Amino acid sequence: MPELRKDPIIDRWVIISTERGKRPMTFEEKGEEKHDGFCPFDSGNEDKTPREITAIRESGAAPNTPGWQLRVVPNKFPALMVEGELNRRGDGMYDKMNGIGAHEVIIETPDHSMTLSDLPLSRITDVMVAYRDRMADLKKDRRFRFVMVFKNHGSIAGASLPHTHSQLIALPEVPIAVLEEIEGAQRFYAYKERCIFCDIISEELSVRTRLVCENPKFVAVAPYAPRFPFETWIFPKAHLPRYEEGPREVYESLAHILSELLLRLNKALRNPPYNYILHTSPFNDPHSGDISHLYHWHIEVMPRLTKVAGFEWGSGFYINPTPPEEAAQFLREVEL
Amino acid sequence: MPELRKDPIIDRWVIISTERGKRPMTFEEKGEEKHDGFCPFDSGNEDKTPREITAIRESGAAPNTPGWQLRVVPNKFPALMVEGELNRRGDGMYDKMNGIGAHEVIIETPDHSMTLSDLPLSRITDVMVAYRDRMADLKKDRRFRFVMVFKNHGSIAGASLPHTHSQLIALPEVPIAVLEEIEGAQRFYAYKERCIFCDIISEELSVRTRLVCENPKFVAVAPYAPRFPFETWIFPKAHLPRYEEGPREVYESLAHILSELLLRLNKALRNPPYNYILHTSPFNDPHSGDISHLYHWHIEVMPRLTKVAGFEWGSGFYINPTPPEEAAQFLREVEL
Repeated sequence: MPELRKDPIIDRWVIISTERGKRPMTFEEKGEEKHDGFCPFDSGNEDKTPREITAIRESGAAPNTPGWQLRVVPNKFPALMVEGELNRRGDGMYDKMNGIGAHEVIIETPDHSMTLSDLPLSRITDVMVAYRDRMADLKKDRRFRFVMVFKNHGSIAGASLPHTHSQLIALPEVPIAVLEEIEGAQRFYAYKERCIFCDIISEELSVRTRLVCENPKFVAVAPYAPRFPFETWIFPKAHLPRYEEGPREVYESLAHILSELLLRLNKALRNPPYNYILHTSPFNDPHSGDISHLYHWHIEVMPRLTKVAGFEWGSGFYINPTPPEEAAQFLREVEL
Repeated sequence: MPELRKDPIIDRWVIISTERGKRPMTFEEKGEEKHDGFCPFDSGNEDKTPREITAIRESGAAPNTPGWQLRVVPNKFPALMVEGELNRRGDGMYDKMNGIGAHEVIIETPDHSMTLSDLPLSRITDVMVAYRDRMADLKKDRRFRFVMVFKNHGSIAGASLPHTHSQLIALPEVPIAVLEEIEGAQRFYAYKERCIFCDIISEELSVRTRLVCENPKFVAVAPYAPRFPFETWIFPKAHLPRYEEGPREVYESLAHILSELLLRLNKALRNPPYNYILHTSPFNDPHSGDISHLYHWHIEVMPRLTKVAGFEWGSGFYINPTPPEEAAQFLREVEL
């Protein structure tokens, strides 16, 4: 059973996931992994993944058979286990609980040769809607307080299989990065009585130097103090605290701006490895209280262009050689 | 001029360092860099670095000539500039200041073929004392609030030159990772009236399952909730808030435990790339107040064995496949 353990100094939770140590990987960094041409996410190999949780099958075919456009399956090497009680308890002076959580894989297309940004908009919309639907479903489980949706694209970005996919992890604790945002947004609200994210969006749409692209419902901007070159955040323009609440039109618009951003990054930086991660409101969380007036969901997209060294790891003080104004201008001027 | 910019949500400062973009590097991750056999840190190439700040020369030779055992020089491609005023100012809704700071390189030996752990204890002690002396000197500059000492060993860990060296950066703001520790230590002190680090040391010396090695003055332990496999923290057993205050005996003892830890890591993990970073009390910081009763300096050593993926980057929620008890036992059982 994996464990969740809390650092006693900074209250950061860590997953100690011994099961994942058994994955087909070693401790040596390496390039693109070899898979002998076999891919468990390809059409026809449905029996090589755990049984699917949901799928889009316009063909009407049976579950776990070919004929799908998108599949959601449990991760075969989950960081957390979905069955069991949390059993929060002490361990000497420390705190831990069972490593309970859901770890799912969203296989974005059966086509091994495609990347997310190659897909037609309707298919990217399906991916965004799948995030919504899984989140709404997992939220019903009272053990969970947060669903983290993320994508690792490329081996350097941590993808262990090249076939395009996203992942989600439902967690019984809120990740520290989101907690810090909530605390910052609470401080700002106490002072200004406004959502800090709405203020940022308003500032960026006015100044426009860090604007990458926009459409009627969304904006993509290089943040003022980015950790990484070409880091870009996508915000809904309207004040929306929870990703999982919205009609399909919202996710169509999101698919549109995400697709455009990825195309711009690919053209500007020659198909870089990247990560993105969705930050949204926690649920069932007794600590944060009602934050719907001050939290604003967003996606952080991080191309992996530079190595992160000891300084950054240990300090949180990042050195970024590319001013966001230059990165945004470069991305804006890409010819699509 | 580089800039320091503050993320408005979580108050994280970032260095926007355009000068470093001019370094001989590109945005492509790559293996060990090629240097055509030339190394600016080798004996005889003293004129290829900026003029030295200090050095150990038992030979009595002149500065910037051969005959040294350790040299401290300004970084040729500094992330921050040492000359100028901070000029704290607003930028729309945001906050920034000039990128003022010192960025120095500690060249640990003239011998290109050695690593830090290959050096005799007296030379490692010299390195630890050099950290102390540079820190004590930079502390006199009222513009600075923190000196971050760190080491990147190996290309994967971010070292851009293979010749063994450490770095330090003097900063006008306290890194967020240290601020979070201080805030956590303050919460603990408010509740218990004890230093949380002293409590951790006491717990680990009692339980011993996460103990890696110890000597009369220092202890090396796998933390209870480590982010990375084989992450190990070195603490002075006595309550010492400030690294830069101590007699040579303290650094001899530190050199001894650091050397032993690195030898154990090298044997256990076949010379892994690693980072270490020194966390110590800020100075001249108007926010933290007197923290000498609750903060405790320490060194965090992080072997770089696993890739860090989007989930960790964007959430601060790390997945670690190796329980610290197993890592510590493995390191304890290495035959030196």
